[in-house]
Amino acid sequence: MGALAKSSICVGLDTDGELIADAVGRGEDAVLTFNRAIIDATVDLVGAYKPNFAFYEALGPAGMRILADTVSYIQSRSQTVLTIADAKRGDISNTARMYAKSILTDMDFDSVTVSPYMGLDSVEPFIEDESKGAFVLCLTSNPGAADFQVSEDAGEPLFIRVARRVCDWNLRANCGLVVGATQTSHMRRVRKAAPELPFLIPGVGAQGGSLAETVSINRVNGVIHGFINVSRSVLYASKGDDFAEAARKAVMVLQQQINDCP
Amino acid sequence: MGALAKSSICVGLDTDGELIADAVGRGEDAVLTFNRAIIDATVDLVGAYKPNFAFYEALGPAGMRILADTVSYIQSRSQTVLTIADAKRGDISNTARMYAKSILTDMDFDSVTVSPYMGLDSVEPFIEDESKGAFVLCLTSNPGAADFQVSEDAGEPLFIRVARRVCDWNLRANCGLVVGATQTSHMRRVRKAAPELPFLIPGVGAQGGSLAETVSINRVNGVIHGFINVSRSVLYASKGDDFAEAARKAVMVLQQQINDCP
Repeated sequence: MGALAKSSICVGLDTDGELIADAVGRGEDAVLTFNRAIIDATVDLVGAYKPNFAFYEALGPAGMRILADTVSYIQSRSQTVLTIADAKRGDISNTARMYAKSILTDMDFDSVTVSPYMGLDSVEPFIEDESKGAFVLCLTSNPGAADFQVSEDAGEPLFIRVARRVCDWNLRANCGLVVGATQTSHMRRVRKAAPELPFLIPGVGAQGGSLAETVSINRVNGVIHGFINVSRSVLYASKGDDFAEAARKAVMVLQQQINDCP
Repeated sequence: MGALAKSSICVGLDTDGELIADAVGRGEDAVLTFNRAIIDATVDLVGAYKPNFAFYEALGPAGMRILADTVSYIQSRSQTVLTIADAKRGDISNTARMYAKSILTDMDFDSVTVSPYMGLDSVEPFIEDESKGAFVLCLTSNPGAADFQVSEDAGEPLFIRVARRVCDWNLRANCGLVVGATQTSHMRRVRKAAPELPFLIPGVGAQGGSLAETVSINRVNGVIHGFINVSRSVLYASKGDDFAEAARKAVMVLQQQINDCP
């Protein structure tokens, strides 16, 4: 999935038309205008952008166009920032291949989040091309993670089995794991089970995960091995005309906090 | 999810623009024209239609419109046939809520397939309204089912734990399970663990699952408790002008085979 990014900050472009700054107006075009302004204000500071597909599908047919336009705008502004399609796909091989084509080829995302539930043949189409890659859900940041992932009533928990298996799948060095920051003791176990995989880390910030522990678990030679995702605290840092400037400042503050972690 | 359907056949509207009958032409409009013809030819014979989202997303922005138009066409032709959005969604609560809104409210599907990996809060938004429902992936029909679902290295396999948990979630009698027909000995275990849940059953036909065993495991008082999904054998029963008639005949033959099962 490309060279090591200079920044480990990922901005979740989970753009909610109701929450964006009034300055950009409302409606479909406003979402794209807003995304472009956020990208302009942060592209030199971040390592990745991750739009969650739910926010775009909610816009109806126009949403897919806005998503595609957002990706190409990112690419026009930077050759090195990673684009992550947060689509959490998982389907049988032939169907996964269609999703891979539309997300990685047609929309030209660099990578995609996928669910492990259906196993290797559901993930393979996303990782066959070594220039593209996938972040596999491992330990998610929501309460429901307790239902199956973390359940210990069956020996080794599922999230550790997923982590080990994805290490086996990582033949082209293009696999990563989604590992939430809300349960850092578990994150430590995943890091031990999968030392070589980059983590995509939601859950710092609004969901309450500890930034300091996340950094300490994932920093190798001064570099975070993966991406720390932030969304609302950047996108909606200000509701005023200065929203883009405020977004930039929020990213800079986060980077400073990361640098200051002991 | 509504009254008991008179038929347990589900037609997977996995319409591939390359494979449809030449008679309807090519391009976006052809997919909708084809779907309408298939629906016209089969709506009095089947219990459900299940379009897989991958096939529509592959069409780009127009795909979502064709999907929405297909659902409203089904509704215009029948008040009782169940519509199943085969989208295999699974995301944190707030995001799942957005998917639920776009699929169950805006597009007005009756039900949706979801992944269990992220647990209850990722499924809840799809089952809060008792007039809508979800089929949770349990035992899938693909080779990758062996990776996590069926793995026995941890006591009770995951697919059985999912089945039991979804029984707990079924407070509004609107949950079902996706249970593939390719491993009928496992299907028998799921049926025992979840006697009350309707199954959505892929894997009969091209994937090699046994129809006779599937019927024997799931028939109660002469009625299949769930839906047996067929797609290619119906959609592409003929490449000629008689494709719709051939689709109807394929459904009738399948119904006869189901009726003839000992």
